[in-house]
Amino acid sequence: MYVFQFSEGDKTMFDLLGGKGANLAEMTRLGIPVPPGFTISTEACRYYLKHGEEPPELESEIESAVHAVEEQVGRGLGDPADPLLVSVRSGARFSMPGMMETVLDIGLNDESVLGLADVSGNERFAWDSYRRLIQMFGSTVMGIDSDIFEVALEETKDAAGVELDNDMDVPSLHALVDRYKAIVLEETGESFPQVPIEQLRRAIRAVFDSWNTERAQIYRRQERIPADLGTAVNVQMMVFGNVGEGSGTGVAFTRDPASGAPGVYGDYLPDAQGEDVVAGIRNTLPLSALGETDQAAHDELLAIMDQLEHHYKDLCDIEFTVERRKLWMLQTRVGKRTAAAAFRIAVQLVDEGIIDMDEAVRRVNGAQLANLMFPRFGSTEGAELIATGMGASPGAAVGAVVFDSPTCVERTANGEAIILVRRETNPDDLAGMVAAAGVLTSRGGKTSHAAVVARGMGKTAVCGAESLGVDVAARSMTLPNGDVVNEGDVVSIDGTTGEVFLGEVAVVPSPVARYFDEGIDSALDGVDEDTAALVKAVDRIMRHADEVRRLRVRANADTPEDAARARRMGAQGIGLLRTEHMFLGERKQYVEKLILSSSDEEREEALAALLPLQRKDFIRILEAMDGMPVTIRLIDPPLHEFLPDLTELSVQVARAEERGETVEADVALLQEVSRMHEQNPMLGLRGVRLGLVLPGLFALQVRAIAEAACFRQRMGGSPMAEIMIPLVGSIQELELVIAEAQEVLADVAESHGCSLVFPLGTMIELPRAALTAGQIAEAAEFFSFGTNDLTQTTWGFSRDDVESAFFSAYIEKGVFGVSPFESIDTEGVGRLIDIAVREGHETRPDLHCGVCGEHGGDPASVHFFDKVGLDYVSCSPFRVPVARLEAGRSSLDNA
Amino acid sequence: MYVFQFSEGDKTMFDLLGGKGANLAEMTRLGIPVPPGFTISTEACRYYLKHGEEPPELESEIESAVHAVEEQVGRGLGDPADPLLVSVRSGARFSMPGMMETVLDIGLNDESVLGLADVSGNERFAWDSYRRLIQMFGSTVMGIDSDIFEVALEETKDAAGVELDNDMDVPSLHALVDRYKAIVLEETGESFPQVPIEQLRRAIRAVFDSWNTERAQIYRRQERIPADLGTAVNVQMMVFGNVGEGSGTGVAFTRDPASGAPGVYGDYLPDAQGEDVVAGIRNTLPLSALGETDQAAHDELLAIMDQLEHHYKDLCDIEFTVERRKLWMLQTRVGKRTAAAAFRIAVQLVDEGIIDMDEAVRRVNGAQLANLMFPRFGSTEGAELIATGMGASPGAAVGAVVFDSPTCVERTANGEAIILVRRETNPDDLAGMVAAAGVLTSRGGKTSHAAVVARGMGKTAVCGAESLGVDVAARSMTLPNGDVVNEGDVVSIDGTTGEVFLGEVAVVPSPVARYFDEGIDSALDGVDEDTAALVKAVDRIMRHADEVRRLRVRANADTPEDAARARRMGAQGIGLLRTEHMFLGERKQYVEKLILSSSDEEREEALAALLPLQRKDFIRILEAMDGMPVTIRLIDPPLHEFLPDLTELSVQVARAEERGETVEADVALLQEVSRMHEQNPMLGLRGVRLGLVLPGLFALQVRAIAEAACFRQRMGGSPMAEIMIPLVGSIQELELVIAEAQEVLADVAESHGCSLVFPLGTMIELPRAALTAGQIAEAAEFFSFGTNDLTQTTWGFSRDDVESAFFSAYIEKGVFGVSPFESIDTEGVGRLIDIAVREGHETRPDLHCGVCGEHGGDPASVHFFDKVGLDYVSCSPFRVPVARLEAGRSSLDNA
Repeated sequence: MYVFQFSEGDKTMFDLLGGKGANLAEMTRLGIPVPPGFTISTEACRYYLKHGEEPPELESEIESAVHAVEEQVGRGLGDPADPLLVSVRSGARFSMPGMMETVLDIGLNDESVLGLADVSGNERFAWDSYRRLIQMFGSTVMGIDSDIFEVALEETKDAAGVELDNDMDVPSLHALVDRYKAIVLEETGESFPQVPIEQLRRAIRAVFDSWNTERAQIYRRQERIPADLGTAVNVQMMVFGNVGEGSGTGVAFTRDPASGAPGVYGDYLPDAQGEDVVAGIRNTLPLSALGETDQAAHDELLAIMDQLEHHYKDLCDIEFTVERRKLWMLQTRVGKRTAAAAFRIAVQLVDEGIIDMDEAVRRVNGAQLANLMFPRFGSTEGAELIATGMGASPGAAVGAVVFDSPTCVERTANGEAIILVRRETNPDDLAGMVAAAGVLTSRGGKTSHAAVVARGMGKTAVCGAESLGVDVAARSMTLPNGDVVNEGDVVSIDGTTGEVFLGEVAVVPSPVARYFDEGIDSALDGVDEDTAALVKAVDRIMRHADEVRRLRVRANADTPEDAARARRMGAQGIGLLRTEHMFLGERKQYVEKLILSSSDEEREEALAALLPLQRKDFIRILEAMDGMPVTIRLIDPPLHEFLPDLTELSVQVARAEERGETVEADVALLQEVSRMHEQNPMLGLRGVRLGLVLPGLFALQVRAIAEAACFRQRMGGSPMAEIMIPLVGSIQELELVIAEAQEVLADVAESHGCSLVFPLGTMIELPRAALTAGQIAEAAEFFSFGTNDLTQTTWGFSRDDVESAFFSAYIEKGVFGVSPFESIDTEGVGRLIDIAVREGHETRPDLHCGVCGEHGGDPASVHFFDKVGLDYVSCSPFRVPVARLEAGRSSLDNA
Repeated sequence: MYVFQFSEGDKTMFDLLGGKGANLAEMTRLGIPVPPGFTISTEACRYYLKHGEEPPELESEIESAVHAVEEQVGRGLGDPADPLLVSVRSGARFSMPGMMETVLDIGLNDESVLGLADVSGNERFAWDSYRRLIQMFGSTVMGIDSDIFEVALEETKDAAGVELDNDMDVPSLHALVDRYKAIVLEETGESFPQVPIEQLRRAIRAVFDSWNTERAQIYRRQERIPADLGTAVNVQMMVFGNVGEGSGTGVAFTRDPASGAPGVYGDYLPDAQGEDVVAGIRNTLPLSALGETDQAAHDELLAIMDQLEHHYKDLCDIEFTVERRKLWMLQTRVGKRTAAAAFRIAVQLVDEGIIDMDEAVRRVNGAQLANLMFPRFGSTEGAELIATGMGASPGAAVGAVVFDSPTCVERTANGEAIILVRRETNPDDLAGMVAAAGVLTSRGGKTSHAAVVARGMGKTAVCGAESLGVDVAARSMTLPNGDVVNEGDVVSIDGTTGEVFLGEVAVVPSPVARYFDEGIDSALDGVDEDTAALVKAVDRIMRHADEVRRLRVRANADTPEDAARARRMGAQGIGLLRTEHMFLGERKQYVEKLILSSSDEEREEALAALLPLQRKDFIRILEAMDGMPVTIRLIDPPLHEFLPDLTELSVQVARAEERGETVEADVALLQEVSRMHEQNPMLGLRGVRLGLVLPGLFALQVRAIAEAACFRQRMGGSPMAEIMIPLVGSIQELELVIAEAQEVLADVAESHGCSLVFPLGTMIELPRAALTAGQIAEAAEFFSFGTNDLTQTTWGFSRDDVESAFFSAYIEKGVFGVSPFESIDTEGVGRLIDIAVREGHETRPDLHCGVCGEHGGDPASVHFFDKVGLDYVSCSPFRVPVARLEAGRSSLDNA
């Protein structure tokens, strides 16, 4: 059976009937007035796609279904006397742009158009319907360029001297129908089909065919929708809202989908068809306008909406038509809504006893929560849009532009708000990025250094605004029109949209962010009613998510300030403390000395200088996180991040030489830097490799951690450090480092008289580490998955290089649905994580596992990590609430 | 039971008794005269290592074993009247440098030394034995620095006015023993132990302890010997070859281990101990010397050697002592031999009916064969060794040094032999490397570009000769002593040893290489008897290996010349044709234009210029490999290999600017190169990514291949091209390229009227490709594992960067036994290959799988590839014979 009357289906049958068809069936089943009709199942479409022709029984099933509708309504399809007209609409399991959507008014032909004119008593309406049919059918079913029809339409209106379609008189419409029919003949070599059932069959086939348009295919690849699902087709009696007074059409929501405020919300347009509402040519009226002209229809509509909301237990989005005072429901579905509305509606439904708190948590998601946490620009009126880059880290920031990190630090110290502008950033810019209100780069994408670090800080950033000619030396940037923005000029950047404005745009802070950062009382202080309701809704949902979640949430934090913030945001520890950030600024000289040291003495000196500095850092951070685990990663990044840039230094030396001003020290440094230069620093001497090759480096760090912990113990604290070795590829590497670390720990414990029981573990960030996790777990007490590096090595591309080079092309071609740096690639990277977790636990059943890559704060990834059995995720402090919420939702999914 | 009399064991018990113990037991079992003794099993050692003390029953077992020996020989251990003396020797399953090896003369003390003097009638011998015991026991068991004993020995000899140890008289030896005993007391606070059984127990424990010396541990890590095997200990009655006329000692082989010539071969030293032979102080005599003094002992020895060879069915290496005309066998084992001897002996044993051809193939290996294929230097007398680097690609090459590729090409065209010297090489140097007789670099290791490419060509190369100050601009290199070698000076480089000589050293070509390249008749032409026997042996073994192997062998070849050579070497097709080598030289301008093109026209122009050039290349190579598969890889390498170097160009522009001579074109080029610059080119825009982003590039290549194949078909040939897509990480990428390729193939087939059925497949060289191989096999008709890149991404290091930076440290610390770029890392990279082969075949049972990385010619890797079920390996032409042999050996292993 391929064809189902609406009365034969229900809302659970979306696989077979598509979303639209299932909901039409559900409404029919509920006794709601739905124009009768039937759905041709996705199975029929699949048969057609596979065999290139419809299943043999489909034709007779369609005919029977049409007869059933004819009988029910007492009219015949295309009957010249009183024609039944039908619409044909696609309706797949997932709504899919690029597919054919609708052909209306099927059943009209040269004869039945007269009957329709007669019966409706509205000749203009009948002929307008006929020309609409020829236009829609001609373009979507017969493949005629729709512009040809549009040109004819415009010329006809011009000839008649009218502006709006609706103002054409009957003779004009007559002439237009003739012209349309001539177009069809000329373009296709065949006449416009006059047999109604043939119109219907061809429209259905056209819907089937539209499954495989290029746009639909690309969309499916991007969204990972299987290519063989097929679409259903809905055939339904036409009803008309455009047959004069007492008729009309509208769309409505059972609650306000923008604010989430209770009470119905919708638009009504008298004497109109649904497409007129969509076209927005005439101003719509509020829903109450229907009540004023037709109280009964209005009351019936509200009762039905109430019924639907209780039935679907959610906000419903409906379409309706009133035809001569008779209300018809044309569509319903669970309505789209803003993030704020999602939270408010969820708790309203709980309070109304329609759903429980578990369900309320399911009804919202992390993306919505993240959205609510960023400040936004108010009106941008008066501000000049000067560039659009990538919205790399959401939020809204305003400040004076500066082009280097030291100036940024200096001017912010004076209380100025600064936007740091760079071609691209590197770790040297960190101090400036910390100080700045926002970051703007002309190169790099969502996974560039600027973007990743800014997101980590929750700092607004726009990246890759390529039209800006950033000239750091000149302290200015040039716009495509030749205008120049100089240091100190004010810009406003929108990290969500990627827009860059010249001048100041007013910023509205986020009450939800304040809720997380300062608590509910502060967030409710002096806000309006809608905001208060939102904050309370977020609070209730977060508390419930925390109650139900299994997965713990930690934060990635490198400073005491970040750590404290993470704690306020609900983090249950630090999952990643990157110690390399402790090697920058004034300390960089020691690191450079350490790397380039030619003697043991030089190296020892550098190490000795670093020890007290590192110890102090650790003391402060262990204090901020007292009583909570702090996973400290030993130094990881590539060498070159601590050395001068080879090209810059080469140019400097060459210039000096040309001027006869050669500086011997620079020449010597250049030699060293050349010697240490790596073709592929990401794949070079870093992490555990550096630790094993550079004597004393890891020992220094372990000693600093151990001494800091002893100090905190003496102060009465509960330091819970965990030491993590980066970039391990084999158990042998890990064993060597752990042996060294244990010696240092034992030594410090003895000389300081304190007890040091630190878990020692490793990052799993190389495919080999994951593949040999069963061995590595013999030495490691915990695993932390570094999903950024693991993604880089599993795919064999570096985030710095590939994003701007080809990710956009890849997403367009459907290779990715989303960048694998944004959301975990479950089939490749995820499979490695799964292998490592399973085999690690086989070796060491109490192995503790977490993730500390950027993915720890990505909603889809959080669910994956929960499913494979990680103990915690760690993400930037700002993403902690998102991770908490998604962890709760994941627990409910798995329950 | 921890202790086994020699009569209780046999040669199969090496796990329990160690190699030495098992062979002593075997000889005893065969009735061969072996001084009686016993072996303490590895199990006892394992118990000791685990518990820190011997198993409780060991003491009594040792005592019983000693009594049994005493009874058998009628003497008591340390009996003052007629002392039994014993030796204690370690004997693990695998021989292991760094472990304690031997303590001799146990049983001597202040009393029994007198008895020994009496019984032997040789007082000097007795006292010399005693002082040897104290010295050995003191240093190896009691841990006294052996230098202290040496100093005392030297001083005693000086006082006595003698030069050789043996010339000391009895009073001197008396005095020395007293002094040694004083040293023991002073250094350890205890007297030299006088109780024989205590000496024995302590010596045994010392052997156990020596299992865990640092050197032994490192060796085990490097050799992947499990750390918990433990060693056995052999305790054996001492016999003496140094008790005057009628006594002596020797070592012998059952055949000549150097040349492989038949007949026994050995050294004999009358009136001496074994250690005197090893020390090499006195000149040894040939084995026949024993026959002249003691025909019976000589005949008995030869009979025993014959018996042993038949018994072990292999060359045996033996140690013997004649004590007063009584022959004792002290050791036997299967003897080490040269590569040439291995081949000759294997076929000799077949001809003598001792083994069959299968076994003969098992008896040789690919490393030996490779060794035989390289030319060698004859005498290096008169040549000055100026540097030693890494033997990166074996062979011996002599020529004039030049420092750049164009000069190299030019001078070789004039018939000169040239050694190309560079700091390091890159693809620009390829023409020079092809032309050169050998390559010498001052940077980079065995996996540097120079090494890998040279090995691929079978070209002699020495890399990383760091003491050479190569100055390309000055066309010279400076030696550490300040001497300068200028362009045109002749050097000789040894690619096996890494030695670099100034001046010409005579080269001896390899007859085995000639056999493979020109056939057996040519190889036998005018050679001496040993060489002829070797060539015939290689021929027989290769023919049998080819008969028994399952795995097919292809070659990596980029030119018709290489292809033809590969075919002569026995390759069954080309497994990797790298098309990027077709983009160098004069064609590079088009590639640069292609990459930097700002318009479609420019790009099309560049593509049009490349098409006929590529087509011609393919025609020639398909002709050379007519009737055999040729796997053509579409362009793969990182962008930067086709562009000028960023740093060089920056310096050039800066210098010009300083001089006020700025060239606009250079500035513009610099801008473009900066824009395309990649931080990590290995992980950047390359392979399939470039193909998907740069329109027309892959289509051009596919068209060139298709047109070449059509041409070859018209010429009556059988072109068997296979098109391979590099760097695929997901099926989506592959599908897009394959769709494009199929369009081109169909178009060419139609327009040329030929039939083109090319398998389309992919490299598996990224972890993600391996992990999603089940999906990828839906689109790919074959897989070729690119193990170089797969190793880089699985481990997360690039061969160009890491080898010189830390591989030597890693090998030293035991992280690797061997570089994973040399031999496949079975646990990580190999596991991915295994996954991909299995899951690829689940999707497509007839999926064809091969490997085309450097590992395809590595013996251990070939066995692995055979085991996981690959269809073929592909390696450089020169390695094809090695792969064929190892594939045969692998088949025999698996049978």
